[in-house]
Amino acid sequence: MTTRIPIEVSARHIHLSQSDLEALFGSRYELKKLKQLTQPCDFAAEEKLSIRVSDRIIDNMRIVGPVREETQIELSMTDAINLGVTPSVRMSGDTKGTPGVVLIGPAGQVELKQGVIIAVRHIHCATNEAKALKLKNSSIISILVKGPREITFHNVKVRVRDDYKLCVHLDTDEGNAAGINRVGEGYLVKK
Amino acid sequence: MTTRIPIEVSARHIHLSQSDLEALFGSRYELKKLKQLTQPCDFAAEEKLSIRVSDRIIDNMRIVGPVREETQIELSMTDAINLGVTPSVRMSGDTKGTPGVVLIGPAGQVELKQGVIIAVRHIHCATNEAKALKLKNSSIISILVKGPREITFHNVKVRVRDDYKLCVHLDTDEGNAAGINRVGEGYLVKK
Repeated sequence: MTTRIPIEVSARHIHLSQSDLEALFGSRYELKKLKQLTQPCDFAAEEKLSIRVSDRIIDNMRIVGPVREETQIELSMTDAINLGVTPSVRMSGDTKGTPGVVLIGPAGQVELKQGVIIAVRHIHCATNEAKALKLKNSSIISILVKGPREITFHNVKVRVRDDYKLCVHLDTDEGNAAGINRVGEGYLVKK
Repeated sequence: MTTRIPIEVSARHIHLSQSDLEALFGSRYELKKLKQLTQPCDFAAEEKLSIRVSDRIIDNMRIVGPVREETQIELSMTDAINLGVTPSVRMSGDTKGTPGVVLIGPAGQVELKQGVIIAVRHIHCATNEAKALKLKNSSIISILVKGPREITFHNVKVRVRDDYKLCVHLDTDEGNAAGINRVGEGYLVKK
C-alpha cells in the first residue's frame, strides 16, 4: 500500500465522430486544441456543446479531442439524473443500447440514438509502469484515497497502452465523494 | 463482514430554526409533515425554499423538520460547486465558521451568516442495535457497498441514540459514486 497514484477527476464531456463534428460545426470543421490532457492522446477542445433530452438541457459541455470512430457522452450520475436519462456504467466505446441525446451545435443539431454512458472508473498506465506495478491490462484493482472523506474505490479497471501515463480517472460524483476537487492522489491496494 | 446495513441517500435539504421559519413563512408558522423519515425524530416537510449565493440559486430545497436550535443547509459537494460556496465536511450542528447563504421563502428572506455544511457520512443506530453490533457512539467504522461501483466508505461516524434506527446516511455524491439511488445496503467492515 505504498505506491502513490495520481488521480484526475473527469467532468462531463463529449467525444465526437468526424461526421457529427461537421454536422454540428460545419463542413470540414477541425477541433481547436485548448489544452493538452495528461493522456498524450487526448486534448480539451475549445469547442463546447449543449445536450438536450426532452425539455432538459446541459449547456457548455466540453468536447475532448481528437475525433473518434463514434460519438460518446460521458456524464456523472448526478448529471444523468438532472437530465432525466438512466445510462449504465460502461467502458469507453461500449455504447450499444445506451440512451441517446440531442447534440446542439452552432451549425446544426444531431439526434443521437445512443452514446450516453457513465464511465467505469479506471487507471491508465504505460506498459512499463504496468510492469513495475505488476498490473495487467483489463484486470481490476482497488484505490484508497485518504483524508476526511476516506474511500476505497474497488472495481478500478486497468488500461495499459504504450502511450498512456499513470493516472486514475474518476467522475465528479466519485471525486466529490472522496473529497477530491479536480486532482488528488491515491494508493494502490493489493489484495 | 456479514452484517447488512440499510443505506439511505440524503438529498440536499434545510433544517430551520423557529425564528427563521417565521421570517420565511410568516408569524407562528408551523411546518406541515409530508412524510415521516426513517429516523423517528425527522420528517420531510411540505415546504421548500430557494437558496441564493450572489447570482446563483438552487430552487425547491426540501425542509426537514422539526425545527432545530439553529438553521443548517446540507449540500453535496456537487451542489456547493454549482452554488459557488466551499463548505467543509462537518457533523450536523457544527456550523461555526461555515459559509452563509440567502434563504428565500414566500413571506421573506433570511441572510444567514453561516450554516452551509457537507454532512459527514454517518450511521444511526439505536442503543440496543449498537450493542449488538459492538459499536460505540462517536466511533468510526467502514461500510462496503457491493456492485458495479463497489466502494468502501471509511470514516463513517457512529451516532447512537435510543430513538435512532439502524441506517447509514450518505449524500448524493456518495450514493451516486457507489451506484445507489435513494436506498441501498452495505456491509459493516470490522478492522
